[in-house]
Amino acid sequence: MNVTSNKQPWLALVVCLLAALACVASSTPVQAADRLPSWNEGAAKKSILQFVAKVTKKGSPDFVPPAERIAVFDNDGTLWAEQPMYFQAFFVFDRVKALAPQHPEWKTQEPFASVLKGDVKAALAGGERALGQLVMATHAGTTTDEFERSVTAWIAAARHPKTGRAFTEMVYQPMLELLAYLRANGFKTFIVSGGGIEFMRPWSERVYGVPPEQVIGSSIKTAFELRDGRPALVRLPEVNFIDDGAGKPVGIQMHIGRRPLAAFGNSDGDLQMLQWTAAGPGARLCLYVHHTDAEREWAYGRTSSIGRLDKGLDEANARGWTVVDMKTDWRRVFAFEKQ
Amino acid sequence: MNVTSNKQPWLALVVCLLAALACVASSTPVQAADRLPSWNEGAAKKSILQFVAKVTKKGSPDFVPPAERIAVFDNDGTLWAEQPMYFQAFFVFDRVKALAPQHPEWKTQEPFASVLKGDVKAALAGGERALGQLVMATHAGTTTDEFERSVTAWIAAARHPKTGRAFTEMVYQPMLELLAYLRANGFKTFIVSGGGIEFMRPWSERVYGVPPEQVIGSSIKTAFELRDGRPALVRLPEVNFIDDGAGKPVGIQMHIGRRPLAAFGNSDGDLQMLQWTAAGPGARLCLYVHHTDAEREWAYGRTSSIGRLDKGLDEANARGWTVVDMKTDWRRVFAFEKQ
Repeated sequence: MNVTSNKQPWLALVVCLLAALACVASSTPVQAADRLPSWNEGAAKKSILQFVAKVTKKGSPDFVPPAERIAVFDNDGTLWAEQPMYFQAFFVFDRVKALAPQHPEWKTQEPFASVLKGDVKAALAGGERALGQLVMATHAGTTTDEFERSVTAWIAAARHPKTGRAFTEMVYQPMLELLAYLRANGFKTFIVSGGGIEFMRPWSERVYGVPPEQVIGSSIKTAFELRDGRPALVRLPEVNFIDDGAGKPVGIQMHIGRRPLAAFGNSDGDLQMLQWTAAGPGARLCLYVHHTDAEREWAYGRTSSIGRLDKGLDEANARGWTVVDMKTDWRRVFAFEKQ
Repeated sequence: MNVTSNKQPWLALVVCLLAALACVASSTPVQAADRLPSWNEGAAKKSILQFVAKVTKKGSPDFVPPAERIAVFDNDGTLWAEQPMYFQAFFVFDRVKALAPQHPEWKTQEPFASVLKGDVKAALAGGERALGQLVMATHAGTTTDEFERSVTAWIAAARHPKTGRAFTEMVYQPMLELLAYLRANGFKTFIVSGGGIEFMRPWSERVYGVPPEQVIGSSIKTAFELRDGRPALVRLPEVNFIDDGAGKPVGIQMHIGRRPLAAFGNSDGDLQMLQWTAAGPGARLCLYVHHTDAEREWAYGRTSSIGRLDKGLDEANARGWTVVDMKTDWRRVFAFEKQ
């Protein structure tokens, strides 16, 4: 029997021929520089191009079949900015305010009372315990569907306090180009972030071209329930997995089951992910983004409380990993910059 | 600069034109029956073809963009056989024997002593605790790389006690065709099994065309370590996640982050996965494989200890889900059968 009856086979033919031409274009010599226009010529860009050439060239001793071309990207500070604090923290504070009418007790109960007064510093004075309370109060207690809707609504409306831009505009243009360039060369791109997995998924496909099933992150536990006969996944106030530091290779193995060929990070929290990637055989690319541009973005590293890059920088230097100097290596940081 | 220098652009052109032709073929009317040759004409096959036609036809109210075409498959009893016991249990017993020289104490210590004597029934008399001991002794204590090698070696050598075939030959030909048919229609196919995630990954791509990152299963915890300066992921004797029953929707959300469009199972352990799938909006396909063919495979269901299908069958009948009667719906069960 006929399954489909496509009324415009000529259209399909045109689409497919265009795809074929694109395919030819990508397997004949191309000006790869065009694929990374926001990268200045220099050692960082060169290391990326050389690595991709090596692992994609048939017959090369470093050739890797497409199915094994796995690239992993940290998110905060690597794909989007993380100053003056992790963007997910803004979500937490906004959500405390949004949920406050349902929690009259928060008016006097810390750390919520300080958040409601707009005093972030006082709210976080309670350390990890206070942070845990804030995260659970704002991330648990809903179904997964409800939580997704709350993230989607917030990310559309919220603005960065310094730039006034949507947080999804605070993504690094050179890294968007790098994601696309790797995918054009047969790589499967994954996010491996300390941030919440369900906080990233609602917008990762639209912003980064990374579908939800290729997002790895920290999580709380969920439970399957029938509510009035309808299945629901309920988010519980209990940590499931922290995808940071030594947790990153664990998360990679759990979700991907293959060692990455290339890993991109910006902080000591990414070090084990880069070590795990580097330890595989054949050509590997390990790259750190170093925040050196106080004018276009922020300058921080060795002593920063957010996104500290200290041990990682030493190891990168010792092992010859690629270090992106944001100020000199990136022609443009954000797409919204004046050119 | 030139990244690649392909010396045979004409070859790439031919490959791409062939791809384009395949693409045209799949978007113009095709004899879909050809794609599922091991399925007899009947209600089950018809429900599959109608579902795929609906969700892939542009302009149809049930059209779903390719990125959201997620199909999830149970493994034991759905993609490969599970009698006389789960195939992973054979791995456990063989591995106890292989590891015995390093564990002289097992000669007298249960449940190991019984396994070494070949008395499976006595070994499992200790119930869940005994099973847990056997699983941990054979699955933990190695690095992930070492465990992968042990699975790869075992699956190549081990044979099914009844058929004498490799376990990877005991896969259902109609289901292989279904996997390929869905992928040809833009679906991403995932395995969602109660079996061990790292037990399936070493061969799932070769046998099912499902890459490791699309395998979801039960797992033990792992820890990242530097051993003599070299990174390793060490498998710990501690349960991380049980991907069965109500755990299946949880595993699906954790790994995929999207509700499946289609779900395939064979037992009550798959019921929540099918419920979760069915509860989404638009067209959904929920299908149970019912083992009704004692001659070509096995006949079991309502009262079986392995792969019991009781509540699931009631719910499938009540809700109009597709139930495959293996005896009548499948023209061929295994590829090695005489035709």
